[in-house]
Amino acid sequence: MASEHTAKAFDSDLQDLTRLVSEMGGLAERLIVDSVDALVRRDVALGQKVVAADAEVDKLQRIIEERAVLTIARRQPMAVDLREIVGAMRVATDLERIGDLAKNIGKRVAALESDFHPLKLIRGLEHMTDLVQSQVKSVLDAYAAHDLPAAMAVWKGDEEVDAICTSLFRELLTYMMEDPRNISFCIHLMFCAKNIERMGDHATNIAETVFYMIEGQAMVDKRPKGDMTSFATTVPGN
Amino acid sequence: MASEHTAKAFDSDLQDLTRLVSEMGGLAERLIVDSVDALVRRDVALGQKVVAADAEVDKLQRIIEERAVLTIARRQPMAVDLREIVGAMRVATDLERIGDLAKNIGKRVAALESDFHPLKLIRGLEHMTDLVQSQVKSVLDAYAAHDLPAAMAVWKGDEEVDAICTSLFRELLTYMMEDPRNISFCIHLMFCAKNIERMGDHATNIAETVFYMIEGQAMVDKRPKGDMTSFATTVPGN
Repeated sequence: MASEHTAKAFDSDLQDLTRLVSEMGGLAERLIVDSVDALVRRDVALGQKVVAADAEVDKLQRIIEERAVLTIARRQPMAVDLREIVGAMRVATDLERIGDLAKNIGKRVAALESDFHPLKLIRGLEHMTDLVQSQVKSVLDAYAAHDLPAAMAVWKGDEEVDAICTSLFRELLTYMMEDPRNISFCIHLMFCAKNIERMGDHATNIAETVFYMIEGQAMVDKRPKGDMTSFATTVPGN
Repeated sequence: MASEHTAKAFDSDLQDLTRLVSEMGGLAERLIVDSVDALVRRDVALGQKVVAADAEVDKLQRIIEERAVLTIARRQPMAVDLREIVGAMRVATDLERIGDLAKNIGKRVAALESDFHPLKLIRGLEHMTDLVQSQVKSVLDAYAAHDLPAAMAVWKGDEEVDAICTSLFRELLTYMMEDPRNISFCIHLMFCAKNIERMGDHATNIAETVFYMIEGQAMVDKRPKGDMTSFATTVPGN
């Protein structure tokens, strides 16, 4: 920082950025909840609302990127200050992806015409969504508070999300094999479940960004990821 | 630019960045081809190679981001020069996502144990992949050459990819309904097809970045996107 004036101006820029990220995070959380709500209640209008609201998330990402870049150019921050700005940009990228995934779920609501509506599956999906939403909330809090242990707890918690998703996939597969009329409905649910699982992945990305901001380096540890692609080998008859 | 010296230093930084993006683009193209090759030929070793190579793509993205940020901080570029740097970061983000999608296909190869291997489907998948790879190549050339018409041609061409993907989905659905033993195999192919379609989406994102770099504003036009989520409503019995 060149002077006290610059330092103050930088702090004010950074506060603006953090506020925007927090606003974007709130919106993304809302979209997670609304998209699955729309899916569970077959609420086409709510699904369309999610699709429309995703544009707001995209816009916020562009604003954050723009502000971040201008702050870097104007204030020439170094080391930890620079990492704060890069961190804001990275978190915004992950939140934008979460918005996209919610939008994809929102779009699928209109395509679900089947009368088939197995309660156990729906509950599983809701449970996974609650978990992911709370992961996103926790990691955004950890980001705002620079709380590394809290971020690492989110990072480790993603295994549970993956496990629920794998068990949902197995169940969906069983329904599909039982009755071909369930197939296209179940495929939509599979893509939705996969989207929710991916939202969880973005929460762990944000946790890694918090690590980077605080520790000044990338995390070396690989996340112990439940490997979804193996589900096929466990299905009888395959 | 403050002086001729700064301008030259900036140009050299920018050349480095462009070279890194081009290197990353070459790698991403390779992963697209290899992942689908591995899938088609059930080559588990090649699939694993793709998974491993994705780490290289991720690393390049971090390097590009780091260099871009340092260039902004050091050279304080304005207007068109700043857009060049932001453009490089955005392209790198899309290429990183393409790498992730290829890695996901690579992972699935090991899970494909079925003897079911319908040639028509495989040809459809290969055709879609050829198209997407050529879209990625064209848009990276357009990026390097600042060729807006070429970028816009890629942007418009994505509709064809979406159409092939929708027709593949319909065929896969038919196979699944015919014989439940095909289901889990077909689901893997569906996720792979969706991944390839998403790579095409990233090519259009890059086209939009080229527009932004040249025109100095975001594209307003919405892409005429083939809506995949409607496939379920066209399936008999649903």
